[in-house]
Amino acid sequence: MRSIAEALESGSLQQVARILNGGLSPSDIAHLLESSPPNERKLLWQLVDDELDGEVLQYLSDEIRSDFLSEMNAQDVIEIAEDFEVDDLADLLQQLPEAVIQEVLETMDAQDRQRLEEVLAYPEDSAGGLMNTDMITVRPDITVDVVLRYLRSHKSLPNMTDSLLVVNRKDDFIGVLPVTTLLVSSLSSTVREIMRTDVEPIPATVSDKEVATLFERHDLVSAPVVNDKGKLVGRITIDDVVDVIRENADHEILSMAGLDEEEDMFAPIMKTAKSRAVWLGINLITAFLASAVIGIFEATIAKVVALAVLMPIVASMGGIAGSQALTLVIRGMATGKVSSNNIRWLMNREFLVGAFNGVLWAFVVATAAMVWFNDVTIGVLIASAMLINLTVAAIAGTALPLILKTLKIDPALAGGVILTTVTDVVGFMSFLGLATIAYA
Amino acid sequence: MRSIAEALESGSLQQVARILNGGLSPSDIAHLLESSPPNERKLLWQLVDDELDGEVLQYLSDEIRSDFLSEMNAQDVIEIAEDFEVDDLADLLQQLPEAVIQEVLETMDAQDRQRLEEVLAYPEDSAGGLMNTDMITVRPDITVDVVLRYLRSHKSLPNMTDSLLVVNRKDDFIGVLPVTTLLVSSLSSTVREIMRTDVEPIPATVSDKEVATLFERHDLVSAPVVNDKGKLVGRITIDDVVDVIRENADHEILSMAGLDEEEDMFAPIMKTAKSRAVWLGINLITAFLASAVIGIFEATIAKVVALAVLMPIVASMGGIAGSQALTLVIRGMATGKVSSNNIRWLMNREFLVGAFNGVLWAFVVATAAMVWFNDVTIGVLIASAMLINLTVAAIAGTALPLILKTLKIDPALAGGVILTTVTDVVGFMSFLGLATIAYA
Repeated sequence: MRSIAEALESGSLQQVARILNGGLSPSDIAHLLESSPPNERKLLWQLVDDELDGEVLQYLSDEIRSDFLSEMNAQDVIEIAEDFEVDDLADLLQQLPEAVIQEVLETMDAQDRQRLEEVLAYPEDSAGGLMNTDMITVRPDITVDVVLRYLRSHKSLPNMTDSLLVVNRKDDFIGVLPVTTLLVSSLSSTVREIMRTDVEPIPATVSDKEVATLFERHDLVSAPVVNDKGKLVGRITIDDVVDVIRENADHEILSMAGLDEEEDMFAPIMKTAKSRAVWLGINLITAFLASAVIGIFEATIAKVVALAVLMPIVASMGGIAGSQALTLVIRGMATGKVSSNNIRWLMNREFLVGAFNGVLWAFVVATAAMVWFNDVTIGVLIASAMLINLTVAAIAGTALPLILKTLKIDPALAGGVILTTVTDVVGFMSFLGLATIAYA
Repeated sequence: MRSIAEALESGSLQQVARILNGGLSPSDIAHLLESSPPNERKLLWQLVDDELDGEVLQYLSDEIRSDFLSEMNAQDVIEIAEDFEVDDLADLLQQLPEAVIQEVLETMDAQDRQRLEEVLAYPEDSAGGLMNTDMITVRPDITVDVVLRYLRSHKSLPNMTDSLLVVNRKDDFIGVLPVTTLLVSSLSSTVREIMRTDVEPIPATVSDKEVATLFERHDLVSAPVVNDKGKLVGRITIDDVVDVIRENADHEILSMAGLDEEEDMFAPIMKTAKSRAVWLGINLITAFLASAVIGIFEATIAKVVALAVLMPIVASMGGIAGSQALTLVIRGMATGKVSSNNIRWLMNREFLVGAFNGVLWAFVVATAAMVWFNDVTIGVLIASAMLINLTVAAIAGTALPLILKTLKIDPALAGGVILTTVTDVVGFMSFLGLATIAYA
């Protein structure tokens, strides 16, 4: 990276081109492009050899890829498309205008087109959308010797062929023959004798999240995919699953701050500013809601100004405690550890943990407040408010993700905003409300 | 899971045992144990067949595993240890008391012990700690035919053998022979003719995060590991890397809320409450700091109580905007997209985005405030404070992760706390400070 940076600064484009196309792998080039400011990025893209264009495109994030694609004419796209495997081609096509898709499809031979249409038939984030139709199938009655000769007749095998898929004449999925088993078996054994029938094929409609969990739980490298009639339609390989795991992790982390995981770090400023503005706007509304609650008790604050000094403590501590429960449950739901089976137990536990900390910190804060303002009442008030808010926070934090999920709202995105609104409103209302009664 | 829940309720332990040991894979059993409340968990663990104990232990999270291990005597541990592969055994041992480790080591044969000690020599979170010493090596001068016969002489091959490792007589790493290449090559070709020499072996001291990035970037299924002298010492397989990716994602997500990713969701309440208390305590100190700032301007608030109603808006909006920049940079650093090369560019960009939104929302909030309180001054004040705070937030959010990383503090853990302290203090100080001047 440093040598490229230096070469760019020195202005020697030939040198940059040499470094780019000489030793870097397509995924390294893509990474470099993604980490470069727009001007440099455009320049570097021009310098990448046409031959590598296709592979580099596969590794780029959706946003940057569609930027580049929109500047290419249909002919260039078709040339690139020839090098793609079916599952990657399906992803690529979904970002192109309809007319170009049609042109690309027309140039493909019938078999490739059929495979492609099979993959396109499924949603992008399902097993069918992830799968590749490129695989080696064998019949159960042939011998290991024949299988080995068959394989030897190929110029190369599909990527990540860690097992051969066993089907019958009608393409029904029967079992899996791991390559490592093949290599240690005697030449006269039949496929049927050595294959595994305990492997569950993945239905094409299963979500990509579930696929990732299955791969992770059973340490898979590849898995067969079947349609609803039990016929083998493709296989998923671990590289695509790793991408899914990364994307899901990105999504969870970035959503909590209201960011989009597809966001390009070097997009034009106006574009970024606009998408951030929406999130800020929503949060502003909830902030005004909390202020409105404070506004109800303006008279009380005018009487006892110390309330204004202390009230943010009640609100923010509720937010912190609630966020812990919320984050734990959201992550637990994403990894399959939390479900309707154990959620009630979890809520009980979070309630008790919240109550314990509520009592502890209420005591600490009350003492500090009493000493600071030389006023016992205010200490009692803030203790009560803290206790109320921390317990409400624990319950809300645990309950919200499930409620949101039932309403089909993304908990990672909406959970935080709603939670802090709840803890702010409850915090201010309990503290200032009790104060109004106490100082009446 | 449902059938187990029903069987447990009906009290039929035999039925539960049958379901457990009959069809579930060890990783499914581990998942079930992790999702069960403590009493059920202990019960289920008793019911798991002794034979499966070892494999189930491998899939459990560190905390739960050490709970179970602490209740087993050395003899049981030794029996279980016999089934473990070297890299998993290294993980297991690191959780046992010294005396037990010694006993286990003594029962192992010399070769296994040496391999184990090799793995234990490296930190847990490095390539050396992740690697397995179980692999197939071949010399470059033998033919494909000989290799195939050699493989056929094994009862089974190591898990995830997707390539054979080519070494010379002195165990220097020379290259990699993918199994798929082996299967399509003519029987008379030599290993040297068909092997790949463009694969970079991973130095054993590289961090597990870097290993994950390498695997992801180059779509690897396994990779050779060398020591500092270039000798082959082991290989890493994708299943361990997927675990690393998941753990790192968990860590980032949970750290931001002050949670530990090793936390057991069903740990005893007191244990959980205590660890949460520490985080709440730290946040309480920062909350008091913000309150102290408000306290400086008590007199001003007494004069204009509307300030107390509006001040949380300035503080919270700063926190929201700052969190976006912070989250983006932290995630960017974790995935290698953000580095000292592009951080200055990024900071410029976030500053401009922050300034844009600062101006926009300052205007909106000012208008709302003016209408609400029928006071132009307060509108101008809140607009100025918003502008200041949103720009400071953008800069702080971008700069903090790098600063923390240089100080060797985990940005995911400390970044949020520090950022909200900054935005609270700056928010209150600018709003109330300007107000003091305006209403003097």
